[in-house]
Amino acid sequence: MAQLRAFEAARAKGAEMPEIVCFEKQSDWGGQWNYTWHTGMDGTGETAHSSMYRHLWSNGPKECLEFSDYTFDEHFGRPISSFPPREVLFDYIAGRVEKSDVRKYIQFNTAVRWVTYDKSSEEFTLVSQDVNTGESKTYIFDKLVVSSGHFSTPNIPEFEGINTFPGEVLHAHDFRGAERFGGKKLLMIGSSYSAEDIGMQAHKMGAASITMSYRSGPMGYDWPSTTVERPLVTRFEGSTAHFADGTSDEFDAVIMCTGYLHKYPFLPSELAVKSANVLYPGNLYKGVVWQQNTNLFYLGAQDQYYTFNMFDAQAWFARDVMTGKITLPPADQRSVDIKSWLDAQDALADHDAEADFQTDYVRELIQATDYPEFDLDAVSTLFKDWMRHKSEDILGYRDKAHRSVITGTMAEVHHTRWINAMDDSLERYLNGPSQNVDTNAMATLDPNIILTKER
Amino acid sequence: MAQLRAFEAARAKGAEMPEIVCFEKQSDWGGQWNYTWHTGMDGTGETAHSSMYRHLWSNGPKECLEFSDYTFDEHFGRPISSFPPREVLFDYIAGRVEKSDVRKYIQFNTAVRWVTYDKSSEEFTLVSQDVNTGESKTYIFDKLVVSSGHFSTPNIPEFEGINTFPGEVLHAHDFRGAERFGGKKLLMIGSSYSAEDIGMQAHKMGAASITMSYRSGPMGYDWPSTTVERPLVTRFEGSTAHFADGTSDEFDAVIMCTGYLHKYPFLPSELAVKSANVLYPGNLYKGVVWQQNTNLFYLGAQDQYYTFNMFDAQAWFARDVMTGKITLPPADQRSVDIKSWLDAQDALADHDAEADFQTDYVRELIQATDYPEFDLDAVSTLFKDWMRHKSEDILGYRDKAHRSVITGTMAEVHHTRWINAMDDSLERYLNGPSQNVDTNAMATLDPNIILTKER
Repeated sequence: MAQLRAFEAARAKGAEMPEIVCFEKQSDWGGQWNYTWHTGMDGTGETAHSSMYRHLWSNGPKECLEFSDYTFDEHFGRPISSFPPREVLFDYIAGRVEKSDVRKYIQFNTAVRWVTYDKSSEEFTLVSQDVNTGESKTYIFDKLVVSSGHFSTPNIPEFEGINTFPGEVLHAHDFRGAERFGGKKLLMIGSSYSAEDIGMQAHKMGAASITMSYRSGPMGYDWPSTTVERPLVTRFEGSTAHFADGTSDEFDAVIMCTGYLHKYPFLPSELAVKSANVLYPGNLYKGVVWQQNTNLFYLGAQDQYYTFNMFDAQAWFARDVMTGKITLPPADQRSVDIKSWLDAQDALADHDAEADFQTDYVRELIQATDYPEFDLDAVSTLFKDWMRHKSEDILGYRDKAHRSVITGTMAEVHHTRWINAMDDSLERYLNGPSQNVDTNAMATLDPNIILTKER
Repeated sequence: MAQLRAFEAARAKGAEMPEIVCFEKQSDWGGQWNYTWHTGMDGTGETAHSSMYRHLWSNGPKECLEFSDYTFDEHFGRPISSFPPREVLFDYIAGRVEKSDVRKYIQFNTAVRWVTYDKSSEEFTLVSQDVNTGESKTYIFDKLVVSSGHFSTPNIPEFEGINTFPGEVLHAHDFRGAERFGGKKLLMIGSSYSAEDIGMQAHKMGAASITMSYRSGPMGYDWPSTTVERPLVTRFEGSTAHFADGTSDEFDAVIMCTGYLHKYPFLPSELAVKSANVLYPGNLYKGVVWQQNTNLFYLGAQDQYYTFNMFDAQAWFARDVMTGKITLPPADQRSVDIKSWLDAQDALADHDAEADFQTDYVRELIQATDYPEFDLDAVSTLFKDWMRHKSEDILGYRDKAHRSVITGTMAEVHHTRWINAMDDSLERYLNGPSQNVDTNAMATLDPNIILTKER
């Protein structure tokens, strides 16, 4: 969506549009934000792309991801809160591209099966397949932009005895809602955003206990009394998990919050990013241009403090490289540049430094293009405030309001605190607290969870 | 495995072996019988192939699937019961191919990404990819045998309101064991083997209730008192399902036993079977040879009364066509032959007739090859006895013993009745009833389920 918007923005200023084909396996755009109830596979037998779940509310301030060329004020026409739920963010990102009239470039329900690159002709050959009819087509392209993301293929470790754990075992990718974990004893394996957020979703939905198991170290938040952190599971025995500190406990379900793999099953190895989830994967000049083949681009291949607006900065940069507006330096100079970023990454001391690092990265991209500039230092400060708020109150940080660095608009204080918000629909979000409790969400809730109309 | 064994059997008789490469995405052979606890995706980010679950015991007599060139007597050296659990059947089919020394032809951990066919050179070009390293390779082949099966890509219908059903929703493909449904109210959508067997697994593991929802008609077995059949779900509302007869009920979980898709994401449309799950898919001469391209073969593309021995009959036939021992008739005669089978299929009146139909089909293949003949009419009678036993006692039919039509060996009466057998391991199966109850299976069992050492 960012790449299409980037070209459309240039076209609106009079530039010539290249011939563009965008392939999307799903029936609608939005990627992660295009929620499906399907897990594993969708109705066409393709893997379910999205790792989205019901009741997901942004876990970072919307002021940190705001498009500088399409603000929240422009879309909603009024202030909204800083941590909107999924449907609201989907509405925002879809609203921008609807306005841009770029849907016509997208072939929906179309999977990319395989891509090859011919060095002599400098062309990509791409085979696509209609996931409904099976019809396949072959295309030739000069440039290829990979924007399939890297948070949809689960990383799934093995544990002794897990094959006979009698309860549910799932990866965060296949988590679609915590309602059914009301009253249950949950084991989360992992200690990053998925464990934190799914764990607190489960707490919100009345889980009896939430145990988070870490490999390197605990997250250390001021968890509610339901929640504990333990070192890594050493083995399962029936429904009992044994931990590295010698403790053990019985669990009803295991959720693997063990991250995601860079997986590009449509690309030969020599064109595919091979990386852990880091702020600066190697081999990508400016985090975007494939070092061995500058006709190949990646958007969003990084770990992400910045999201939507970083994807824009990358897409504007990629566009300008593709159209020749930006001239790439020779390979050795690009290598030096990549290495300087990798060295800086290695030296990062803490999360604050990481936010600054990605701020500097986004700044460099924006300065190279005509993407509307905004106060990136102010965004970096927002990130630090947000991390401090999380440390202070892991269940309450989403109730804070932040100020847009683009429009100066102060976010609304939301009508319902996150912990009490049991209806995540756009309609309820915009139109105020319900007079009725949400009967769907109530169905499996522990009765000691009180739904309230007050904040 | 059948195709490799077919070539190996010919080699043992002095025939020349062609150059064979067999691609297997998983790390071991066995396909469906290669159990994994993974659902959705495996540890490499590839889709989990197997639809297998813990505590799956054969749902048909082993005497109906026995290899005539490798009997149960030969493998186990003693009589065993007629309905063995997964690990026992896996041991049997793996034992045969281990003996054949065909593992060397298999590239494990290797996915096939895309295949094309060049009509002028009459060659297939195949792109494979190592699922661990990402390394891809391109091969040229004269013949292609598709034996990836058609019971691993779930068919998943949509239902109004299912996207907010608060409980677990899964397809039978992702079902790995019923232990966690002890005490739960289960809704099974579907009325074929998956609904029947997973439903009775859940009953065995102490489910509070099992509701099976049919589209065309009820299965009508003499279900236990926990189990009812209802017409199709019209919509969900929270945790309540509404049925076409106007009734409704609340459920803890939904299991879609809605069948599987023929899905070949590595094949262009013009080479891919497009069919419902029927005994005779169109477009395949003798159910094996692709009508428009006789260099292309399918094994096991049918719905199946016969399994292992039918795959053998097909593999022997395919082998003899590939080596020229069998000369194919011209296309128009093949079309007439296909049509005669399709017409006969259309006229099938009941399940008994279906068993006879597939018996005739297997007979024709075996008679065309040197696959060891066996009394197929006796097998057809076994199928009919089995279906009658199911009608009489859906929880007890697996306790019956049948006689091998190949060796004449009468099956052992198993030491534990199926309903009481809580340990499905090969070790326990062969070595007799446990002195201890199975603590794994007990973990989530309702205490009113009594495990007993007696049959």
